[in-house]
Amino acid sequence: CDLTGWWENDLGSKMLVDKVDNHGNFSGEYHTAVSSTQKPIEPSPLIGSQHLDEDGLCTFGFTVNWKFSDSTAVFVGQCFGEDSREEVLQTSWLLREKVDSQRNDWRATR
Amino acid sequence: CDLTGWWENDLGSKMLVDKVDNHGNFSGEYHTAVSSTQKPIEPSPLIGSQHLDEDGLCTFGFTVNWKFSDSTAVFVGQCFGEDSREEVLQTSWLLREKVDSQRNDWRATR
Amino acid sequence: CDLTGWWENDLGSKMLVDKVDNHGNFSGEYHTAVSSTQKPIEPSPLIGSQHLDEDGLCTFGFTVNWKFSDSTAVFVGQCFGEDSREEVLQTSWLLREKVDSQRNDWRATR
Amino acid sequence: CDLTGWWENDLGSKMLVDKVDNHGNFSGEYHTAVSSTQKPIEPSPLIGSQHLDEDGLCTFGFTVNWKFSDSTAVFVGQCFGEDSREEVLQTSWLLREKVDSQRNDWRATR
Repeated sequence: CDLTGWWENDLGSKMLVDKVDNHGNFSGEYHTAVSSTQKPIEPSPLIGSQHLDEDGLCTFGFTVNWKFSDSTAVFVGQCFGEDSREEVLQTSWLLREKVDSQRNDWRATR
Repeated sequence: CDLTGWWENDLGSKMLVDKVDNHGNFSGEYHTAVSSTQKPIEPSPLIGSQHLDEDGLCTFGFTVNWKFSDSTAVFVGQCFGEDSREEVLQTSWLLREKVDSQRNDWRATR
Repeated sequence: CDLTGWWENDLGSKMLVDKVDNHGNFSGEYHTAVSSTQKPIEPSPLIGSQHLDEDGLCTFGFTVNWKFSDSTAVFVGQCFGEDSREEVLQTSWLLREKVDSQRNDWRATR
Repeated sequence: CDLTGWWENDLGSKMLVDKVDNHGNFSGEYHTAVSSTQKPIEPSPLIGSQHLDEDGLCTFGFTVNWKFSDSTAVFVGQCFGEDSREEVLQTSWLLREKVDSQRNDWRATR
């Protein structure tokens, strides 16, 4: 699979992956539909990489550096392009929120 | 904080972050000390980004594209450079292992 | 909400929660549809507790002690019984697999 | 291993596990040292179960029904009682916070 292009999830968040290079690296933009802050949402840059397996089942990961907050999110997942059906991405994510001391580290990750 | 340089964790894994650019993007190499495969471990490329807050408490994330497996890992965390003590990174991670169908998606992420 | 009764998820796993007591504690049986072991799947006991808020949005958690493996799973979630629509449970889970030493602790949790 | 007794973690949270029964079920009390609410912390009931393997490496899980909030936490882990060293518990946890609608489900779990 090749992540290049637009993807949308169930919550309405969208991402655009610019051309994947021949090492599997890519950058792009993430337009989240949801946010835990009060500030206006803005498209935010993403950067990541994917495996280039030829079976359409490659794993990938990327980081989103939120422009409207001091948090960072990472996503990891796999393409499923089985049969002639449309390609699907399954992902999991972690959101790191900034905390003011190591004492509060336990609650920083969703 | 600035992630540029070598970092080591409790398990003995090490990473080298090459120069962080002025958008916060960076690349580097991850030398893991542990693996769930039988294959020999090899240094693997990482790519990610960090916030550039001036208080030494910035969040960051990066993706490791394992060279010796078809898995991908993502790490998300925060620097703690309080007082004059040495900088510490607190991170969480997800490892995505390749599965052969969406039916097995539930067990693909550690 | 009251978890008493049968529930089924998207993967076809089913659980039966016996009567919830007036502290919110309950026991029951979990019939998983999926497994990471080769052994035959067996119904396994579950034990947990729920909040007893009157707005139909209570959080809950439970532990499943797998009968056919030495792993343990925990589930945490919330009921959504809004409007007159059918009640829905949203859950997240962690599966702990037994490892032989603390050195391998890092990969024990899915 | 047998979880009966007092345990304390790095953050200073303590738990008391009452007698484990011969199915591996137990109840007890959790005294958390940290909280994401402003309300005073109170000891909260826990309920869970453990495997009864004889090698001192059994997995376990339990649910904590917070008395001072409408959240629920689950913990899953494993005992390590290697050699003659003191027994150690390694655990992971998920905290479910109550949200008002399924639309906000994505951010309910830490």
